[in-house]
Amino acid sequence: MMNKIIENQLIDELTEQFQRSPMQMNKLHGSDAELIQLSGDPNMRLAITTDSIIEEIAVGLYDDPYLVGWMAVMANMSDLAAVGARPIGILLSEVLPHNYPTASLQRLQQGIQDACVKCATFVLGGDTAMSDRLMLTGTAVGITDSERILSRSGCKPGDAVYVSGPVGRGNAFALSMLAANFSPDLRYGSGVLRYQPIARLSAGQSLPGIASACTDTSDGVLSSLDQLMRLNNVGFEFDENWEYAVDSESGKLAALHGISAWLLLAGQHGEFELLFTVPADHEDDLWEAASKGGWTPLLLGRAIKKPEISLPMCGGRVSIDTALIRNLTYHAGSDIQQYVRELLALDREFRKGEVQYVSQ
Amino acid sequence: MMNKIIENQLIDELTEQFQRSPMQMNKLHGSDAELIQLSGDPNMRLAITTDSIIEEIAVGLYDDPYLVGWMAVMANMSDLAAVGARPIGILLSEVLPHNYPTASLQRLQQGIQDACVKCATFVLGGDTAMSDRLMLTGTAVGITDSERILSRSGCKPGDAVYVSGPVGRGNAFALSMLAANFSPDLRYGSGVLRYQPIARLSAGQSLPGIASACTDTSDGVLSSLDQLMRLNNVGFEFDENWEYAVDSESGKLAALHGISAWLLLAGQHGEFELLFTVPADHEDDLWEAASKGGWTPLLLGRAIKKPEISLPMCGGRVSIDTALIRNLTYHAGSDIQQYVRELLALDREFRKGEVQYVSQ
Repeated sequence: MMNKIIENQLIDELTEQFQRSPMQMNKLHGSDAELIQLSGDPNMRLAITTDSIIEEIAVGLYDDPYLVGWMAVMANMSDLAAVGARPIGILLSEVLPHNYPTASLQRLQQGIQDACVKCATFVLGGDTAMSDRLMLTGTAVGITDSERILSRSGCKPGDAVYVSGPVGRGNAFALSMLAANFSPDLRYGSGVLRYQPIARLSAGQSLPGIASACTDTSDGVLSSLDQLMRLNNVGFEFDENWEYAVDSESGKLAALHGISAWLLLAGQHGEFELLFTVPADHEDDLWEAASKGGWTPLLLGRAIKKPEISLPMCGGRVSIDTALIRNLTYHAGSDIQQYVRELLALDREFRKGEVQYVSQ
Repeated sequence: MMNKIIENQLIDELTEQFQRSPMQMNKLHGSDAELIQLSGDPNMRLAITTDSIIEEIAVGLYDDPYLVGWMAVMANMSDLAAVGARPIGILLSEVLPHNYPTASLQRLQQGIQDACVKCATFVLGGDTAMSDRLMLTGTAVGITDSERILSRSGCKPGDAVYVSGPVGRGNAFALSMLAANFSPDLRYGSGVLRYQPIARLSAGQSLPGIASACTDTSDGVLSSLDQLMRLNNVGFEFDENWEYAVDSESGKLAALHGISAWLLLAGQHGEFELLFTVPADHEDDLWEAASKGGWTPLLLGRAIKKPEISLPMCGGRVSIDTALIRNLTYHAGSDIQQYVRELLALDREFRKGEVQYVSQ
């Protein structure tokens, strides 16, 4: 039995007494955005999703208002991308600190506007309140009219696992932002990595009918794979050469700090690429669609029958307890230094071969 | 020239650099919910709105998690009602305090669920984060397919001004919650008034084509009228007997505390009725629709040419500076006691005839 995910349990508890809409086509946890049947055309579905930028600000990861604004848009657009939707726009609830400096407010709004332009979408409306600290909540809405639904469900053993672009930058950025806190444990080097992810909307729009399952890597690659594993009751086996899919600057930063590349997949600050599975008989379609769209899918590995996530390491293979990794954020609470220390300890134990984390 | 509204100015500043969607049918400030043209049927419009419950919690007005959950749904449904939309559902972003008691969480979720059942709608999805204090942001989505759009714009001099039900309970509730803070100034009497507004969805759905303008009284009646005044460049004249539209329990509570009934319209905690204007040649349609829907419109007065809000008082008539009243929340900041003291001072000056607030 797989260990439980505290976040999923919390969502289950929160929604326990809620009734589900008969118009809703996805199950709980079943897709990155909610999919709602509209009357009329049976293939016309509303895609809608909400995501807040709160904890990233609280733990000091996003200290630039421009990035906060950018991410409030992009995190939501990325959820639309993962269901293959075309965005209609976004609503923003902005909680501003009392006496927020005008220059900060302008940067915040500029980040929002630039992200909207990048996604060819619009701020439709919003709400503003004052409080102690900055918090942004976005709700993005879009349309999907493909014959086949793109969701987190549908993956089968044997399907190939791809990402829409290099991964690891979310966690490498977090490392570069927080590294100063960890010296002398971490040898802080080359300044802060640039982090400004772009939602993979056009890649996502090409995937319905090709990918068997899709999600974004908003919480990092291993969390995304863990979620797909639970929903589809399959496992995932990384290829021997999976590290070619790691963003090169991020890989260099990790090496500089002496930490393993797999930790760039394990941390829960993602890069907002799409992670998707493709049955063998759709691989040609994938490469054709990607070539037409000007992007390159990167192969990570394969879906397997046994529900475990298996990674080549130190010449062997380890089965990673992704539940333990996902639940670390809850165990460490809002103490991000503690969180990073626990991740690093995991890696050390791994490499010494002292502990082999296996899913039970 | 009318004095400026600080809230409107802030919204103007925040959105200054944003581009507007060519699919968006309402202007900024122009309607309670955003109206988005969907492709296909030209009358098929998405209505979408977001509203947060933050300040009501921070100032101690909502101390029951059930009410917080209820209002996170109802405040948003009320915005859908004001554009005549049928709800599809709501997304909720819940920011929970660390170590929030299970019993409180259950009451919060029960309030959400009960409000959804009351509106025959559904929680479609959401997001959860942890922080110092409880905050809820809802985003409601609905559909409107009437030939005529219902918005805040379209009212003309001569139109009758109605509310969909008794008003004043929002502020009477606030008074009853906060009165203990003001004794001995206020003679605190009969406990806390029950407050659990219900979004006027079916009333709203009957108004497109009948009402020339519509908004909800989420910020109190005078703020809503002030907003309609600015958008339509008309004023409003209350009838001599407008007080029959005040909720009776609320009127009694105000009398008990020795404060004027008009303050129940002036405070910015509303009752979520619809406030709408009706041209003379549509009044029959209104009464027919209301009778069919089982509700009774209450006449407040008429729209007039001069952009002022005129209220009968002490045998005469005063022109109320609603800009000053709306801006009080900003001047007082989050100090609600200061806010109430300033409102009460206004009333005292009014009744002494020492100050005649006129819009310039």
